[in-house]
Amino acid sequence: MNQFIQKYYDTSIPSLGSGGAVKVLSPATVANVVCGFDILGFALNEPNDEFTISLSDEKGVTIINDDAYDLPLDPEKNVSGAALLALLEETPDIKGFHFISKKKIKPGSGIGSSAASAAGAVVAANHLLNNRFTKEDLVRFAMFGEKVASGVKHADNIAPAIYGGVTLIRSIFPLDIVSIDAPELHVTVVHPQIEVRTSDARQILKQRVLLKDAIKQWGNIAGLVAGFIKHDYDLIGRSLEDVIIEPVRSILIPGFDDVKKKCKEAGALGGGISGSGPSIFMLSRNEVIARAVESVMKEVYENIGLAYHTHVTTINQQGVKLL
Amino acid sequence: MNQFIQKYYDTSIPSLGSGGAVKVLSPATVANVVCGFDILGFALNEPNDEFTISLSDEKGVTIINDDAYDLPLDPEKNVSGAALLALLEETPDIKGFHFISKKKIKPGSGIGSSAASAAGAVVAANHLLNNRFTKEDLVRFAMFGEKVASGVKHADNIAPAIYGGVTLIRSIFPLDIVSIDAPELHVTVVHPQIEVRTSDARQILKQRVLLKDAIKQWGNIAGLVAGFIKHDYDLIGRSLEDVIIEPVRSILIPGFDDVKKKCKEAGALGGGISGSGPSIFMLSRNEVIARAVESVMKEVYENIGLAYHTHVTTINQQGVKLL
Repeated sequence: MNQFIQKYYDTSIPSLGSGGAVKVLSPATVANVVCGFDILGFALNEPNDEFTISLSDEKGVTIINDDAYDLPLDPEKNVSGAALLALLEETPDIKGFHFISKKKIKPGSGIGSSAASAAGAVVAANHLLNNRFTKEDLVRFAMFGEKVASGVKHADNIAPAIYGGVTLIRSIFPLDIVSIDAPELHVTVVHPQIEVRTSDARQILKQRVLLKDAIKQWGNIAGLVAGFIKHDYDLIGRSLEDVIIEPVRSILIPGFDDVKKKCKEAGALGGGISGSGPSIFMLSRNEVIARAVESVMKEVYENIGLAYHTHVTTINQQGVKLL
Repeated sequence: MNQFIQKYYDTSIPSLGSGGAVKVLSPATVANVVCGFDILGFALNEPNDEFTISLSDEKGVTIINDDAYDLPLDPEKNVSGAALLALLEETPDIKGFHFISKKKIKPGSGIGSSAASAAGAVVAANHLLNNRFTKEDLVRFAMFGEKVASGVKHADNIAPAIYGGVTLIRSIFPLDIVSIDAPELHVTVVHPQIEVRTSDARQILKQRVLLKDAIKQWGNIAGLVAGFIKHDYDLIGRSLEDVIIEPVRSILIPGFDDVKKKCKEAGALGGGISGSGPSIFMLSRNEVIARAVESVMKEVYENIGLAYHTHVTTINQQGVKLL
């Protein structure tokens, strides 16, 4: 059915009218940035999903998958669909959307695949509607997509996908998003091909933490934010320490300790689990170091004998891009 | 004995030689800045202690109290004395110091009285020694004074007293102090005349906290640091929220909830317990609001029938000042 619809629409795309269609690139994102669990994320220049949206005379959202992931076509069960339905609730003048999804960010990789689907869909729709909504509105809509993906409305991938750069979610209810300036940073990501379910990664966390550890953590997040805004690489490096989440979650990721240790020896400022894993990210001052870090990551997973993908990229300052 | 020594030295001060004596003003400080428990502090322009130091031919530290507080004269039991003894450990060429203490910051008020004693002593000594030590060294020495005062080596009052402005103690071991730029801020402090022992205030805290509260707290400290550096008053105001320490400690301070609520209604950005109390501080954008906040504080304690002192001041950007 999925295949059939996909083929059917592939040929019919031109009929949507190029004038009425909007195409966007929606970026991967890193959330839970080390000491910034649940509050800090940033967008990547690579990889990106590609989405095309146009107005439809049919009510609701018609989804066409133009990729290999066989994601649900029922908009209420589809991340992009749920986000678009939330947006449609506030656009009584619009009947519906045609939405073509060409995902390249593998679901479950830990680099914000679902956020890219949700954020990309609503930013594209907003372009189609002459940008009638604010970025904060779009985050609000996209969070309905995240709820479909993980059962929880969180914004630490969506906000950087929509705002670009490094974003702080100071508070989720009420939503308070703060853009954090940062110096040039190169990001290396390795995605070992294992599955870490977000729900498992959540369940493994302890509900209570030691106050002394929490104090260390908020010292580090304060240092990290100051380091970003002051463009102080050394302070960023010293602050990239997570004494609460990483010690618990990293056991789900084979090779984690080895990757982290060797990447820092190779010159990385630091890094950790991307989202809830299994991807691991490292920040570096320049591309030469970021490439050396990639070599180290490859070496570790070659030795373990685990398949992997890597990305060497930079921070995406713009968020979802109109094509 | 204290009185005798004081009088004896009062008349002998000129013999120390004005050329060889250094006099400093050492500021009060606010630590545990709302969501920045144990990691964030700032210095005040008022009140200040006044200290005079000169070289001595006698070994160790001779302390003269020129105030009403009758603090210990044994340097090992005296906050300034312990800090100076720590400094003397690293100055084999210096025999000792004469130290005259004229304290105006009441011990136990929660605005860094002991830190002023420790920081003022070592900064004054460093001037006498042609500034051979770095500020970080001085913090290290002064922490021995804090240990005498509270049994714990903490730096969140000492660092702002020595560096001036708003300071982040990202880490205490190893010591990592980060100066945080901030916009013009007016500070109103009320000191209700009750005793809150630092040890009691420590004991009342729970050793474990909910992860979800810790996440809120590190969202707020990240927002507060960003708000300071970006000079964003609204963000500062939104981030001045403490969901972990204040709910527990504020029960030790009569009138706390009332003061906080009414000060915010009067226009304060926010505030909370200063140090471990009993003083309460509020931050405001301008002096007019800071004075209105003072009136509110006075009203609350007049109604309760509890004696109090207030200060309306600004952030001291310089730290301990040479006179």
